[in-house]
Amino acid sequence: MRSTGIIVEYNPFHNGHLYHFNQSKESSKADVVIAVMSGNFLQRGEPAIVSKWARTKMALLSGIDLVVELPYKFAVQQAEIFALGSVYLLDALGCQSFCFGSESGKIDTFTRTIDILQKNHHQYNENIKKYMQSGISYPSALSKSFKELGLGEEYLDLSQPNNILGYQYVKARNHLHSKMEALTISRKNANYHDEDFSSSTIASATAIRKAIFDENDTLKIQQYVPIATFNELSNYKQVFGILHEWERYWPYLQYKLLTSSHEEIAECYEVEEGIEFRLIREAEKAVSFQDFMEKVKTKRYTWTRIQRMCVHILTNTKKTEMKNEHRYPEYIRLLGMSANGRNYLNEMKKSISLPIISKLSAFQNEAVQLDIKAAKVYSLALKEPKRKHLLNLEFAQPPIQIGKREA
Amino acid sequence: MRSTGIIVEYNPFHNGHLYHFNQSKESSKADVVIAVMSGNFLQRGEPAIVSKWARTKMALLSGIDLVVELPYKFAVQQAEIFALGSVYLLDALGCQSFCFGSESGKIDTFTRTIDILQKNHHQYNENIKKYMQSGISYPSALSKSFKELGLGEEYLDLSQPNNILGYQYVKARNHLHSKMEALTISRKNANYHDEDFSSSTIASATAIRKAIFDENDTLKIQQYVPIATFNELSNYKQVFGILHEWERYWPYLQYKLLTSSHEEIAECYEVEEGIEFRLIREAEKAVSFQDFMEKVKTKRYTWTRIQRMCVHILTNTKKTEMKNEHRYPEYIRLLGMSANGRNYLNEMKKSISLPIISKLSAFQNEAVQLDIKAAKVYSLALKEPKRKHLLNLEFAQPPIQIGKREA
Repeated sequence: MRSTGIIVEYNPFHNGHLYHFNQSKESSKADVVIAVMSGNFLQRGEPAIVSKWARTKMALLSGIDLVVELPYKFAVQQAEIFALGSVYLLDALGCQSFCFGSESGKIDTFTRTIDILQKNHHQYNENIKKYMQSGISYPSALSKSFKELGLGEEYLDLSQPNNILGYQYVKARNHLHSKMEALTISRKNANYHDEDFSSSTIASATAIRKAIFDENDTLKIQQYVPIATFNELSNYKQVFGILHEWERYWPYLQYKLLTSSHEEIAECYEVEEGIEFRLIREAEKAVSFQDFMEKVKTKRYTWTRIQRMCVHILTNTKKTEMKNEHRYPEYIRLLGMSANGRNYLNEMKKSISLPIISKLSAFQNEAVQLDIKAAKVYSLALKEPKRKHLLNLEFAQPPIQIGKREA
Repeated sequence: MRSTGIIVEYNPFHNGHLYHFNQSKESSKADVVIAVMSGNFLQRGEPAIVSKWARTKMALLSGIDLVVELPYKFAVQQAEIFALGSVYLLDALGCQSFCFGSESGKIDTFTRTIDILQKNHHQYNENIKKYMQSGISYPSALSKSFKELGLGEEYLDLSQPNNILGYQYVKARNHLHSKMEALTISRKNANYHDEDFSSSTIASATAIRKAIFDENDTLKIQQYVPIATFNELSNYKQVFGILHEWERYWPYLQYKLLTSSHEEIAECYEVEEGIEFRLIREAEKAVSFQDFMEKVKTKRYTWTRIQRMCVHILTNTKKTEMKNEHRYPEYIRLLGMSANGRNYLNEMKKSISLPIISKLSAFQNEAVQLDIKAAKVYSLALKEPKRKHLLNLEFAQPPIQIGKREA
């Protein structure tokens, strides 16, 4: 069976994702589509609005065959490490290709850009250094430095968020000497950060989340998401009473910042350059997470970078825990599968070298502790007995299965 | 002016306290009564039900002349250190005497018991060691060891909570070579832990708190507290929306336990003998603070000791912060005064060697950091903007004054 991999967060799964899935399947000519999906906390430093289980179900019901979790250690990370962990897992699962959406839509621009940057390595790095010293953020410095090489149109526009991610995917593939073919499709309509509904069927996850939270009117999003998403969101709300968002974790983050010493906060991953003083000072004054972020934000730090930092502080994730010798994922956490996906796994089992975790309670390993801690924190948005119920799922839930053969 | 000192928590001020105050004033023949009062967190390891300001006002309106705060470092402590800090402050404030309520009611039994225990020092300590090894709690071991000396009726019954405290007060007075006279009065009616209303006008603070929280019916307590207490409680509820209790801090304690390593919890003050493993394990399962305490409790640890431990974990108070070179309070935090109290202070000012803090924002010192951290945590029971309002008071509130002279 031929398989292709996609790297996703599905927060929540929407029509744009469905388009990406269909295009990936078509262009790769794969029988099986495997999604590597972030767990409780996402790359942009946010809690997922619903559990990994609900998001897995959305994916499976929309046609994905296999959903595996990108561990916290790689999910809540800047693009480079996020990409490395994801591509590594897809390769480990035996994918012949992987396919990502990008603003560019042309795979040649990615390979060409990687080549030229290797050749202009020295000048590029000098440019980055210069821009960083001027006090702007790292992503801006990258994009400006690249532009300054003056390479023209046949190269990537590295100011576009999905081009950046794609660039990192292809670079990771090269770095890992993986044989997977890299494919890209042009993203349709919505830009990542768009907050408005700009097309009649495709809207960004940002716009959809905004509608869910701001308007408290899930009906409005119906035309932008598959029915499975709509049902799962409604179901989650009914069972757990809420959708997860940063504000629900703000009391804990604030508490943590108000009771920790500067040294303790500085031990947390991604806290650098004395920003701990700023974080602690503003936490006392802030009246909400939004307020806190606005108070803390500077030119030098992107919103996303600060949010990720906040997730690591919230989960008490230390530099020492993240910067250990293990650069690649050490396990495959299986979240769900279709009948097709199950067949694929059975076929491939023997050639997959990483341990596959079907149920967390049956797997004892130092490496999963970060995921467990993240799950404990994630569940704290809920009141009892819902907190306990959600946390129990983390340990006891077997992979979600759809299309089970009848007994 | 003659002054006498009393050591109090006023959680809340009730008719039993009023009796204690009147008797203290009478038996000491003092012009001024000075109360050393615990701040946000109390000796038994609980948050005070209302702020130190509200409790100060209750005290002043009932006749107390001066209220100063016992710093966190001495307030949330076992009896011996609690007593040392309190007696030290009363001595520093120039009291000629101090007066405490006890089950015994006879000051001779205290001095006699201290003497005899010094003489039987060796045997007493051997007994304690023996009982501790049998796995019972420290207070039980003390009381059993003392009983085993077989000294008879003219000595203290050290199984009574107020006798124990009084014993520590007198011992502290001796230890400090203070010239203060020790006075005691017989406690009237209510036992400390009584949960029922056993007399028509005097009930224990425990019973009163139970009525406030369980019945949600403040009217019921009217006959057991001065009108000032009733008004202050009602007012606090109206302004801040709640009364403080452990359950409101439980989410933070649970969060802290779920995100910390064993080593981190073991660094907290009073966490000993590996109990951190038990705390972390049960925090995951517990659905409330009450549930948590019942799961954690053992014969070896009294409820109070575990609660104190929990306060230190909640405030992230480390062993290193509590066990430094400063054995005695380094400042006098003035919470409130009557006109009489103000005159006394003016008269005494020059002979008081400790700095007097009238407003926290004007005082910068390493030593108050523990109190500030406690105040930050205490305020986290409230929603914005009430949290910020209460915390601002901590820094900006000048001492409460009643009976101000007209301008």
